[in-house]
Amino acid sequence: MERWIELNNRVLAGTQVQPGHDLEALQVYFQEKVNPNTVFFHTLKEKIRFLTERGVWDAGLFERYTHAEVQAVFDRAYSFKFRFRSFMGAYKFYSEYAAMSSDRTRWYERYEDRMAVTALARSSTLEGALELVHHLVNQTFTPATPTLMNSGKANTGRLVSCFLLQDCTDNLDSITKTLSFVAELSKGGGGIGVEVSNLRARGESLRGIQNVTKGVLGVAKMLDHMLRYADQAGQRPGAGAIYLSVMHADFLDTLSAKKIATDEDARLKTLSVGATIPDLFIEKVRAGEDVYQFYPHSLWQETGREFTDIDWTREYDALAGNPRIRKKRVPARRVLEEIAVTQGESGYPYLLFEGHANRANPIPNVGSIKMSNLCSEILQPTTPSSFHAYGRENEDRIGLDVSCNLASLVIEQTMGSGDIGRVVGTAVRLLDNVARSTHITEVPAVRRANEEMRSVGLGAMGLHSYLAGHELIYGSPEALEFVDVFFAAVHYHARRASMELARDTGFVFRGFGGSRYQSGEHFAQYLERDFAPRTSAVAALFDGHALPTRADWEQLVADIKQHGLAHSFVMAVAPTGSISYVSNASASIMPITERVETRTSNKARTIYPMPGLSPETEWYYEEAYDMDQRRVLDTVAAAQKHVDQGISCTLFVPADVTTRTLQAYYLYAYRLGIKTLYYTRLRKSNLQQCLSCVV
Amino acid sequence: MERWIELNNRVLAGTQVQPGHDLEALQVYFQEKVNPNTVFFHTLKEKIRFLTERGVWDAGLFERYTHAEVQAVFDRAYSFKFRFRSFMGAYKFYSEYAAMSSDRTRWYERYEDRMAVTALARSSTLEGALELVHHLVNQTFTPATPTLMNSGKANTGRLVSCFLLQDCTDNLDSITKTLSFVAELSKGGGGIGVEVSNLRARGESLRGIQNVTKGVLGVAKMLDHMLRYADQAGQRPGAGAIYLSVMHADFLDTLSAKKIATDEDARLKTLSVGATIPDLFIEKVRAGEDVYQFYPHSLWQETGREFTDIDWTREYDALAGNPRIRKKRVPARRVLEEIAVTQGESGYPYLLFEGHANRANPIPNVGSIKMSNLCSEILQPTTPSSFHAYGRENEDRIGLDVSCNLASLVIEQTMGSGDIGRVVGTAVRLLDNVARSTHITEVPAVRRANEEMRSVGLGAMGLHSYLAGHELIYGSPEALEFVDVFFAAVHYHARRASMELARDTGFVFRGFGGSRYQSGEHFAQYLERDFAPRTSAVAALFDGHALPTRADWEQLVADIKQHGLAHSFVMAVAPTGSISYVSNASASIMPITERVETRTSNKARTIYPMPGLSPETEWYYEEAYDMDQRRVLDTVAAAQKHVDQGISCTLFVPADVTTRTLQAYYLYAYRLGIKTLYYTRLRKSNLQQCLSCVV
Ligand SMILES: Nc1ncnc2c1ncn2[C@@H]1O[C@H](COP(=O)(O)OP(=O)(O)OP(=O)(O)O)[C@@H](O)[C@H]1O
Ligand SMILES: Nc1ncnc2c1ncn2[C@@H]1O[C@H](COP(=O)(O)OP(=O)(O)OP(=O)(O)O)[C@@H](O)[C@H]1O
Ligand SMILES: Nc1ncnc2c1ncn2[C@@H]1O[C@H](COP(=O)(O)OP(=O)(O)O)[C@@H](O)[C@H]1O
Ligand SMILES: Nc1ncnc2c1ncn2[C@@H]1O[C@H](COP(=O)(O)OP(=O)(O)O)[C@@H](O)[C@H]1O
Ligand SMILES: [Mg+2]
Ligand SMILES: [Mg+2]
Repeated sequence: MERWIELNNRVLAGTQVQPGHDLEALQVYFQEKVNPNTVFFHTLKEKIRFLTERGVWDAGLFERYTHAEVQAVFDRAYSFKFRFRSFMGAYKFYSEYAAMSSDRTRWYERYEDRMAVTALARSSTLEGALELVHHLVNQTFTPATPTLMNSGKANTGRLVSCFLLQDCTDNLDSITKTLSFVAELSKGGGGIGVEVSNLRARGESLRGIQNVTKGVLGVAKMLDHMLRYADQAGQRPGAGAIYLSVMHADFLDTLSAKKIATDEDARLKTLSVGATIPDLFIEKVRAGEDVYQFYPHSLWQETGREFTDIDWTREYDALAGNPRIRKKRVPARRVLEEIAVTQGESGYPYLLFEGHANRANPIPNVGSIKMSNLCSEILQPTTPSSFHAYGRENEDRIGLDVSCNLASLVIEQTMGSGDIGRVVGTAVRLLDNVARSTHITEVPAVRRANEEMRSVGLGAMGLHSYLAGHELIYGSPEALEFVDVFFAAVHYHARRASMELARDTGFVFRGFGGSRYQSGEHFAQYLERDFAPRTSAVAALFDGHALPTRADWEQLVADIKQHGLAHSFVMAVAPTGSISYVSNASASIMPITERVETRTSNKARTIYPMPGLSPETEWYYEEAYDMDQRRVLDTVAAAQKHVDQGISCTLFVPADVTTRTLQAYYLYAYRLGIKTLYYTRLRKSNLQQCLSCVV
Repeated sequence: MERWIELNNRVLAGTQVQPGHDLEALQVYFQEKVNPNTVFFHTLKEKIRFLTERGVWDAGLFERYTHAEVQAVFDRAYSFKFRFRSFMGAYKFYSEYAAMSSDRTRWYERYEDRMAVTALARSSTLEGALELVHHLVNQTFTPATPTLMNSGKANTGRLVSCFLLQDCTDNLDSITKTLSFVAELSKGGGGIGVEVSNLRARGESLRGIQNVTKGVLGVAKMLDHMLRYADQAGQRPGAGAIYLSVMHADFLDTLSAKKIATDEDARLKTLSVGATIPDLFIEKVRAGEDVYQFYPHSLWQETGREFTDIDWTREYDALAGNPRIRKKRVPARRVLEEIAVTQGESGYPYLLFEGHANRANPIPNVGSIKMSNLCSEILQPTTPSSFHAYGRENEDRIGLDVSCNLASLVIEQTMGSGDIGRVVGTAVRLLDNVARSTHITEVPAVRRANEEMRSVGLGAMGLHSYLAGHELIYGSPEALEFVDVFFAAVHYHARRASMELARDTGFVFRGFGGSRYQSGEHFAQYLERDFAPRTSAVAALFDGHALPTRADWEQLVADIKQHGLAHSFVMAVAPTGSISYVSNASASIMPITERVETRTSNKARTIYPMPGLSPETEWYYEEAYDMDQRRVLDTVAAAQKHVDQGISCTLFVPADVTTRTLQAYYLYAYRLGIKTLYYTRLRKSNLQQCLSCVV
């Protein structure tokens, strides 16, 4: 066993968790593994020449700056004496993010190099690059994995990995086009959400012949196989989710394809499933009534409208009363029960409460929100495309799909910087750069959306580790208050940065005119009251920060009216499943799942004590599975008020959770106005539960 | 039970087969089912108005002729007093071919109507239509199902159902394009062959990353799901086959996906598999040696050539000797054994002996033959296309795939007509019309091939029933002699009709110049000797027919040199799995499988005594499973000499056949120069075997 692994494993060797061993492991990992295997260069010039000639770094990048400027950025990066604070952080970074020789025996980049190159690539001036490298090295925020991994590289993978496609509509040309788009995006490392509610259901008519169509599951199976085929070049498996309305006649069929016990031939192995839930459905659940599920083709034949064009809550009664529209009747509670059963088995489906998502939609003038993405934090309107067979591309109509790039504030460091505004402003300019640098030409409606809407998503990570470090209990009133004030401030600064970019560059996203941004409606809450700390404990946390006041918001709303906004959306809270390790933070705004994580790969077991865990703070590191999930939902609801898109919200439940409990959580989340629930994680075994005793 | 079914079932009710009951069933079926449920029209005018207004018949068709002309064609059709000669023939025609009301309770067309409309639709002059309707009603030949079913209909399905795609080549854009083409063709009722040997194998590198590709099976699974999804609108399941070379590293993997016991997730349920076998492989089998199977991407990286560009027989040694090309070594006999094992379980794979196919290729100047179709009777060169991502279609290069339309002579009636030349000439003109009427715009390389090559395939059916009727034993020397003379004559007349069309219309297929047609090479055997009967028994069969002589051929070859040919290919012997029932003939040139077939659908058991079966002829109706299959292979080999494309050749074996026997058949077929073997049929149970005793 390698020595650093052995040392790392000592963390859990004794009767007490001994995080100290982790730092020993870290030191040995650098001394014995990273440092001796990092290619040495006498000068930066030499390094740049070598790596551009090898096709590792993009030569063009170094032509945009003078060598002195490049040197300045690298010097700045190295000036901070950055040190990883956990073995896992370093291990993850050096095995997944840093550039290596193609035989993967030698490193070409150190941490500081990757950050310097990213800063140069994602900036257009020396000043911008110096400011960015400061934040990157100090981890006040971190761009999402593809941006951090691919920036400044020659054989560049994409910078964005988050895509939504809504055009898997009801004809073969669109379905096969969607398959090819999914292949293209998946190959480039994308995670893809696909809306499928417009597909006619199983057993509808085709060209007038009754009872012949295969329905959603047939398409889902092909998507599933495509994701498995076109994976991310063996680096990670393809990743995608379909979104299907609970009002669709195929809903239960499709859901059951995620069950473990399903016929192997029908099972969806890789593809995730999201359920789109209108308010009407929840009303029926509450009332204990039946609900109709509709057949889209019959609906279309009778009304000339697509399934996703329907506002189910408003139009349900009329459609349910029309005998010429085919539908089937089922107790609403049975559907919800099936959702809970399937989640209890597999973690899926995601839930999207479309009423909440659309009431909060700032740009209903562009379209309605019908779907989400792979991690259910992206919520944007989409508009349909129409595709034709080969040779008739000139007849295609290109709508708006979604491409969204993400970054996450690291709460500890952002708060520690004393200047949320500076951190957020820099993060938004980085995201703006990523959007401008992205041209997904192969998927025209994604390309168009990125060009015209330029949506970005800033989120945050490390909430739990931050709260624990400041002796606040996750989900407590103070913690919720912190979340409220923090996200309100982030929202202000993100929006202001977006307005400034519009003002300074003249680029205003398409659809700003007529939006709830322009009318100010979207900002109503901030014009009513200040989002300032109420308790002294929380006030102390924000000491030294200039928090935005009602007056600041009034000014901003006026500025937005005048100058517009560069981005249709600015916020979204991603799970930060990978990048949080590198950033020494707990993931996203979720509670930690284990005080000490253990990961077993085919090579070895590695141990990761949560950032900041110590005998003193231990008490604040309550594990998610031990919590009433209402505390998680309260936390998410507090943040959601300030997040224009969504939040990846995971539920953590014991393996023996009842479907009753799950359903209670869904209804609680709905009551709080939460827009989406990401998957449900089941505590795997009692073994891990014991860790809490060990600490 | 319906009365006609009950009567039909009496055929097998006694201790003796009583074909007489079948005629009673037939009569009752018309009296009690067809006639009362056929919509009555006072006049043809009324019928045409009604059916064109309903969108059943194509109104445009009736504008191409005067009403008197239309009337004349219908009158001619009805003048023959056509009568079905078996219940099954009528039942099949009236349930699958005749137009019905959309609720399928009433017939709009009688047999004569379908033939009259088809004759009108597929002709351009009254004379042509009158000639054609004569043959159609009298069944001297029959067009393949889609032509007969869809001609003259308004909401017209395609007239052709036979397609070959060779461009599932080694990049994602081509793979997803192929998927969309397969969907498009399958939806339109096509059976599709897809060449996949250029795909890199499992575990090759992708963008330099080692060991990540999924190989052929990943693509095959997607094709399989696509065929199941986009079926023929519920009418028949989608149908397709991949062709893969035995020299490909993924060959055994892919083959095992057809085994019954295979992991459900890997199994190919709908997609058939064909094995492309070069001479070299057979040499290795004979010598008991190992053979290398190659990795296409490695091959391409080292030589810059695609897998299907390689002449494996000529180039094997050099490639096998090159250590930089990745390959694996396996005993050739083990591969053949696996083929036999898999056939014994599932009937698959088809075999394509590419050496034989290419030695007989009349247009090597266009390209080499790399694949076949769903029923392995189509053998034509293809040339590669290259496809790009969305928006870059202008860079696409469109090669030649294949679209081929088929018709089959009914041997009994063709011989009975006394004028093979007249029958064949009319059939070829019909096929020419079908090619000209077909525009598969959605699949550009198919469209181009059809437009430029205009290949057609005339075959024959009813060999066994014809031989039995004339007291010849299937596979006997006289029978082989008959086949030889008959197909030589058909070839002569088909080729002459093709030359005449070129001469009269000025259309010469692309690639004629430089072909072995132009040089005369392709006709060498006919210039060496006459193909006339040698025995008096066979001579008697051809009494009254003017058989082509060597001098006729010399003239024809000269005419071809001068005028060219309209069709790149003119012959192919299809299985006639459906249409032979309607035509009262045994299928194709295969032996019958049962003297009396029984078919059990969910509704009822129906009984089909072979055409012409009687206590007197019974002896000549030897069942295929009881024969040494060498007699089948001898028969096919006799015909193959005169068929420019291929012949669907089924092997019929008992369920307990040994793999040794199967392998012996393969090698025997190879030795005879047979180009393809279609699937292997296993006798299902002993129950049916007893029928031979019952008769
Ligand atoms: N051959 C088929 N088998 C099964 N489903 C099919 C087939 N063709 C199309 N579908 C499905 O039926 C729906 C309609 O497809 P499409 O619009 O391409 O057909 P269409 O020929 O226009 O028929 P319609 O007039 O009924 O729309 C889509 O969901 C499509 O995937
Ligand atoms: N993401 C992927 N995962 C698995 N297989 C893939 C992936 N992308 C492509 N392939 C397969 O690898 C082969 C090469 O595909 P393609 O030419 O599109 O890739 P590429 O990016 O050009 O890489 P290369 O330079 O290796 O050709 C094809 O067989 C394709 O289907
Ligand atoms: N396996 C995956 N493949 C492709 N994209 C993914 C995958 N997992 C997540 N993503 C994309 O990245 C986004 C952010 O997820 P997150 O867990 O925050 O990633 P990271 O921590 O690597 O930056 C997701 O919304 C999704 O779009
Ligand atoms: N199930 C099928 N679906 C689509 N096409 C088919 C199918 N079966 C056969 N074909 C096509 O029709 C051609 C002729 O097959 P054949 O059995 O002679 O048909 P038929 O008797 O219906 O005319 C085949 O080579 C193939 O191209
Ligand atoms: Mg349609
Ligand atoms: Mg490539």
